[in-house]
Amino acid sequence: MELPVFYAPELNDSMTVYTMNEDTSKYCIQVLRHEKGDQVLLADGRGGRYTTVIIDDNRKKCQVQISGKEQLPAPEPALRIAIAFTKNASRIEWFLEKAAEIGVQTIIPLVSHRTEKEKIKAERLQNILVSAMLQSKQCYLPVLEEPQAFSKVVQSFGEEQRFIAHCLPDQKQDLGDVMEAGRNTIILIGPEGDFTPEEVKQAMDAGFKPVSLGKTRLRTETAGMVAVVMMNMKA
Amino acid sequence: MELPVFYAPELNDSMTVYTMNEDTSKYCIQVLRHEKGDQVLLADGRGGRYTTVIIDDNRKKCQVQISGKEQLPAPEPALRIAIAFTKNASRIEWFLEKAAEIGVQTIIPLVSHRTEKEKIKAERLQNILVSAMLQSKQCYLPVLEEPQAFSKVVQSFGEEQRFIAHCLPDQKQDLGDVMEAGRNTIILIGPEGDFTPEEVKQAMDAGFKPVSLGKTRLRTETAGMVAVVMMNMKA
Repeated sequence: MELPVFYAPELNDSMTVYTMNEDTSKYCIQVLRHEKGDQVLLADGRGGRYTTVIIDDNRKKCQVQISGKEQLPAPEPALRIAIAFTKNASRIEWFLEKAAEIGVQTIIPLVSHRTEKEKIKAERLQNILVSAMLQSKQCYLPVLEEPQAFSKVVQSFGEEQRFIAHCLPDQKQDLGDVMEAGRNTIILIGPEGDFTPEEVKQAMDAGFKPVSLGKTRLRTETAGMVAVVMMNMKA
Repeated sequence: MELPVFYAPELNDSMTVYTMNEDTSKYCIQVLRHEKGDQVLLADGRGGRYTTVIIDDNRKKCQVQISGKEQLPAPEPALRIAIAFTKNASRIEWFLEKAAEIGVQTIIPLVSHRTEKEKIKAERLQNILVSAMLQSKQCYLPVLEEPQAFSKVVQSFGEEQRFIAHCLPDQKQDLGDVMEAGRNTIILIGPEGDFTPEEVKQAMDAGFKPVSLGKTRLRTETAGMVAVVMMNMKA
């Protein structure tokens, strides 16, 4: 039987005892019905996985004794995706859940010319990422950055291999054919109305390669997920 | 400007005039505000794409005159997925939408030992597939079959290349490494509690190769979506 894993972002090496926050305590004690003496794992979201035993099964502040720590290596190469958030919140929330499950290190909400959503509900989205990390048995929480302007993103990440996925009828290669294994990678995914021709040119001038994600026309959140799958396959 | 495409399943070569059903008429005339004289495309879901002109912009029974037909070749090789439907309807609906967008020819609701959902809302799911087909500019509607028992599915598809994705700690290869291009393919995706060891053995005895879909533990609907992306990349 696999041990349950809970999220403990404040946990660090100097602690011998840790108190879960109220939501996690409730989930651990009231929902999953753990009790004093049960062994549970804690993940700090930065690769640390701690073995612990419940010493106080309080449903609002469950306390555990830490008995061991394993530090897992960070996923390599680093995979980043900058994606225009959709107007429809549930579509981008699905994307975040799936991207975190499949595996990605950084998600950047991309503010391009046709992006319809520039503000994000950071706390809600953070919770989705934490659930997906725990669900998929990972130890690194993807980093959700602040929304960034297209021109800023295009000028960053100088040492990565860089791609821009778009639907304009230009010549493009499939991401799967052009991506090289073992290199840090960033891909840009546009909004429902696509990037503008000027944006595609700006990215290409900055060294981004235009790529296709398959034969069909994909919605933004689908394109994002397909890109995450392809990057993981090639990485 | 691209012409809008509407679904017309009853359309056939002998017709010169076609009347859209009430939902499609409403969408075409009331929502998209098309009117008499506008050119629109119709897709029959079987590869036929018809060029038409609206001759009666009635919002309940919009009538069009057919002026031409293009028959597009069926996607090859054929990609099939048999997947245990999740208890949570929205998760499997999300999968159907994404699978149809990315491209798959047949979806079989798989009734395995631990499947929690054996009945499906065929009409609702059919509508999701139609929307996704139109949205992604495709002309073939994926076939959603009736739910089928695991043992029956395992005995079918004798000439395909056949895979079963599972989470048991057995030796497995990545689907991307083992799948051969150009061959008809079927993959089985298990329920939340996975296939039983007996089911995995039964499938392997019938010639299914066990495969992995990546490094992380995926939910059923995520595994299904990842499999569809990988099959399309390799096909």
